[in-house]
Amino acid sequence: MNTQISERLAAFRKLMTERGVAAAIVPQADPHQGEYLAPHWQVRRWLSGFTGSAGDLVITLDKAALWTDSRYFIQAARQLEGTEITLMKDGLDDTPKIEDFICAEVAPGSSVGLDGMLFNSEQVSSLRDKLTANGIELVTDFDVIDRIWLDRPALPDGKIFIHDLKYAGETAKDKIAKILADSKGASAVFVAMLDDIAWTLNIRCNDVKHTPVATAFLYLSKGGNTLFIDPAKLSDETTSYLKSQGVDTMPYDSVKQFLSDLGSDETVLVDAKHTAMELLNILDCRAIDGGTSTAARLKSVKNDVQLAGVHAAMVRDGVAMVRSLMEIEERITAGTTTTELDVAEILHRQRSKGDLFFDESFATIAGYGPHGAIVHYEATEETSSQLKPEGLLLIDSGAQYLDGTTDITRTIALGEPTAQEKRDFTLVMKGHIALATSIFPSGTRGAQLDAVARRFLWNNGLSYLHGTGHGVGHFLSVHEGPHSIRLNYVDIPLLPGSITSNEPGLYRENIHGIRCENLVLCREELTNEFGKFLSFETLTLCPFDRNLFDLSIMTADEIEWVDSYHATVHDRLYPALATAEERAWLESHTQPLAK
Amino acid sequence: MNTQISERLAAFRKLMTERGVAAAIVPQADPHQGEYLAPHWQVRRWLSGFTGSAGDLVITLDKAALWTDSRYFIQAARQLEGTEITLMKDGLDDTPKIEDFICAEVAPGSSVGLDGMLFNSEQVSSLRDKLTANGIELVTDFDVIDRIWLDRPALPDGKIFIHDLKYAGETAKDKIAKILADSKGASAVFVAMLDDIAWTLNIRCNDVKHTPVATAFLYLSKGGNTLFIDPAKLSDETTSYLKSQGVDTMPYDSVKQFLSDLGSDETVLVDAKHTAMELLNILDCRAIDGGTSTAARLKSVKNDVQLAGVHAAMVRDGVAMVRSLMEIEERITAGTTTTELDVAEILHRQRSKGDLFFDESFATIAGYGPHGAIVHYEATEETSSQLKPEGLLLIDSGAQYLDGTTDITRTIALGEPTAQEKRDFTLVMKGHIALATSIFPSGTRGAQLDAVARRFLWNNGLSYLHGTGHGVGHFLSVHEGPHSIRLNYVDIPLLPGSITSNEPGLYRENIHGIRCENLVLCREELTNEFGKFLSFETLTLCPFDRNLFDLSIMTADEIEWVDSYHATVHDRLYPALATAEERAWLESHTQPLAK
Repeated sequence: MNTQISERLAAFRKLMTERGVAAAIVPQADPHQGEYLAPHWQVRRWLSGFTGSAGDLVITLDKAALWTDSRYFIQAARQLEGTEITLMKDGLDDTPKIEDFICAEVAPGSSVGLDGMLFNSEQVSSLRDKLTANGIELVTDFDVIDRIWLDRPALPDGKIFIHDLKYAGETAKDKIAKILADSKGASAVFVAMLDDIAWTLNIRCNDVKHTPVATAFLYLSKGGNTLFIDPAKLSDETTSYLKSQGVDTMPYDSVKQFLSDLGSDETVLVDAKHTAMELLNILDCRAIDGGTSTAARLKSVKNDVQLAGVHAAMVRDGVAMVRSLMEIEERITAGTTTTELDVAEILHRQRSKGDLFFDESFATIAGYGPHGAIVHYEATEETSSQLKPEGLLLIDSGAQYLDGTTDITRTIALGEPTAQEKRDFTLVMKGHIALATSIFPSGTRGAQLDAVARRFLWNNGLSYLHGTGHGVGHFLSVHEGPHSIRLNYVDIPLLPGSITSNEPGLYRENIHGIRCENLVLCREELTNEFGKFLSFETLTLCPFDRNLFDLSIMTADEIEWVDSYHATVHDRLYPALATAEERAWLESHTQPLAK
Repeated sequence: MNTQISERLAAFRKLMTERGVAAAIVPQADPHQGEYLAPHWQVRRWLSGFTGSAGDLVITLDKAALWTDSRYFIQAARQLEGTEITLMKDGLDDTPKIEDFICAEVAPGSSVGLDGMLFNSEQVSSLRDKLTANGIELVTDFDVIDRIWLDRPALPDGKIFIHDLKYAGETAKDKIAKILADSKGASAVFVAMLDDIAWTLNIRCNDVKHTPVATAFLYLSKGGNTLFIDPAKLSDETTSYLKSQGVDTMPYDSVKQFLSDLGSDETVLVDAKHTAMELLNILDCRAIDGGTSTAARLKSVKNDVQLAGVHAAMVRDGVAMVRSLMEIEERITAGTTTTELDVAEILHRQRSKGDLFFDESFATIAGYGPHGAIVHYEATEETSSQLKPEGLLLIDSGAQYLDGTTDITRTIALGEPTAQEKRDFTLVMKGHIALATSIFPSGTRGAQLDAVARRFLWNNGLSYLHGTGHGVGHFLSVHEGPHSIRLNYVDIPLLPGSITSNEPGLYRENIHGIRCENLVLCREELTNEFGKFLSFETLTLCPFDRNLFDLSIMTADEIEWVDSYHATVHDRLYPALATAEERAWLESHTQPLAK
């Protein structure tokens, strides 16, 4: 029995009763509709004990349920053990939708509460439509957590810093001009997404773990630009830098008043899906929804300076990976006690030695054996397995360098792999290779390519439920929109200059997990009578485990791709390695597969 | 100079001026939002001279433009020659949208006219939004064509007939009950799509060439069901049959009054995308848009009786194809003069000999050499090429049998194929085979599978612009929704029991066209810890041209698939062939590729 969670839920329900609310929705969200939250906004985590980065909690007076996606099914089940909270597996056919659950649990005439700063308008209207049809009222100012979360972390007050032009490649002034030039007739543009703001202004901060953004809102208009930010986060240098780019500052919490005071003739372009419903309500008819923000679209296409940075960062990251894999191998061979947490420590130690290292880009996932099947597993003191010279180790990790963000997954065999391990790994790699070598017409959406990476698994009755690829920021979010390569259709084409992960996987519960991830750069391939075609350049530099390939199910072209990739890895990393041992390790691990 | 078209446009403009309309939109549409139109509704064809099955005409006082898709680019260009009508290639980046064209051509303060029976509400609102924003008014009762199209064909008056239960497999009564059981809380269901009506009531007719539907509207409710149909189309037998299924009849043209007279407490489920805007306006708040109609969804999943019929029809169609291909081959070898029109005649003659033959399912496309690159080419006396013992002949044809609808494309070499011809053909076949052998999770949408068929072409800088697969009806529309396999995302999963075409292609303008089309049946493949997986069974039975395969770019699995398919074709068709010559032809044309 988890008494801490029981007490928190009881206290929360008391506040629900006080406000006459029969159910409340506590999302994983902040007022910026981002994926990564500052500790201040980890309300769902505090109330449920579930630490995953996605999942919404619904609390009624006698029930509680948490919806999360397949990446977290196993983790959530474990973390919710001993609580009254039911796990709702999002995406499965028999899982009710949140609104259906509420309608079934709550009597007509009741009210349901949520905090309108944590939802976008579309989410609220679709909820409201459903609830209203069932005679239930939706209350959108139910924001009570401060009264019971007494040690709630304050809003982040770390200082912002300038992201140097030598890394960013384009001034904030120029980016602002581009955004305003594409304002679709509106007189101003409002930006709520933290990474859009960091990219636009070339500023960074450490408000959110692993994602170097600053908590702020941004209002751009021909008449002047305003950054809404806690004054404590500014210095004379950054204030004057912002001024030099044409940006004034106002306190973070003045944004509502500011928007409310705007003249009725102002029109403000917003990305409604990424703007809090409460702010959109304040703007009312002054808001024009332009869909995906211009900042997000421009940000996804990296410029030459950024790409040079990413290429350089990939060498440093590859060197750190080689040293880490080598150290893990040596420890296994020597029989030195090594746990999953040790693996994370090794990676952090090796990466942090690299130039321009700032942070990891997310918490390292080192999953040994069955833990590898928990897609977003993060080892803790309690769970951390000890590695043995057998089975598969899945390592998904990455770093924030000033010149680029990395994200790489390698799955390695700690002993002599079994036929099943090799077959599973190779089926995943066949998809990885098929996507890496794809050529496709300009205008192709990620959902149209997704099956290219899945079909070898599908054809063997296997699959994975997560996306095949997510966009990646430049010294910003490791998951960056607006494009992706996944089953869900997103109406955004893959653009030359955009970076995406290529990470098919296979997870056999209680056995092992496999994921093979490189980052790829979309580029122009050719133009002919059939139009313009794009393709991918693989950016990540690190060998795959040669022992895990089952050559009997690979085509000559697939083997050739691996060999050629390994030759590139060798040639790029070799000069950057320090010792003869490291170079020997690289040599042996990048030999042709058939050798 | 095409004086006939000039005169028609001039007469139409006179009526525009009379009504004070500065532009008019004449769509390829009827009041049932179907793809195939009775002659009465071929207004766009009459005004423009373009005979394709898709394309909308916009006429201003001094300009005219026709939007059509890639299937018709070449045909439309030829048919519009000598007219003032500009061809607008839909789907190309630099082609303006109709509403943008109008806004550019028409002054603010003007009116634009259309017939609200020929558009759905969504089309009208999106047009109106755009036009209103530009100060242009939309007039939705601009229906003047009768005044100038003096020999306009009347509404079809052919008799309906009963589609026997031994073919349909389910009574109309049962289908009506299912549709009403899924009425989403509405008190009635209104059906406007002709094939939905034909399927629901197990009736057929010959109102539309190649598509055995009857012109009618259908209103279903617990209180009674009404078919709105011209009394001339009924007999005592069909009237009493309908009555036996619980369906009364009223005249076709009484539908507006009927809907208008419905009580304000009636709620009527509609598929708004397939209901005329004018009818929806009459229903007003009484209409509930349920999206894709229940009839369309149920219709797409064929029952066992229908599938047994389709399998039987495929043997008859395969026999007709074998005899036709044999006859064409013999004529070429003998040097007998043979044109594209002759090919169409041969196919028609062979098919019409088959049991249960009712009609062709569309006009045969027999495109020789460069004509093959015109995706929906239909030979005429003027264009019909004479075949020579060289180059490629593309034959896309199909039939309506009482027990099923067929659609097949074969591309054959009339002489010794060139390396380029073989390579192009084989790249298309690799995609065809990849799709035919796909296994995919239940819930997969067609757009997610589409690239599986395209990737071999894409990877060689080649592509085709049409869809890879369309749904196929059962003794109904050869293009039947709601599912498809194409680039455009359609949020409808592929369901077990549904039939889809598998028809990748490659079109080299002025050189040749290649398309390889079989129909496939979606079926359950397996269920395991990863969920339920589906796959396809190929239904069509006819050899591909063995001479066109380039074995050097095929995998062993691909060659094995062709050999195994040919073995099935052999085994199913052999007993149905009549002569030793036919059997010898089949033997030789279904030999293993490597032999």
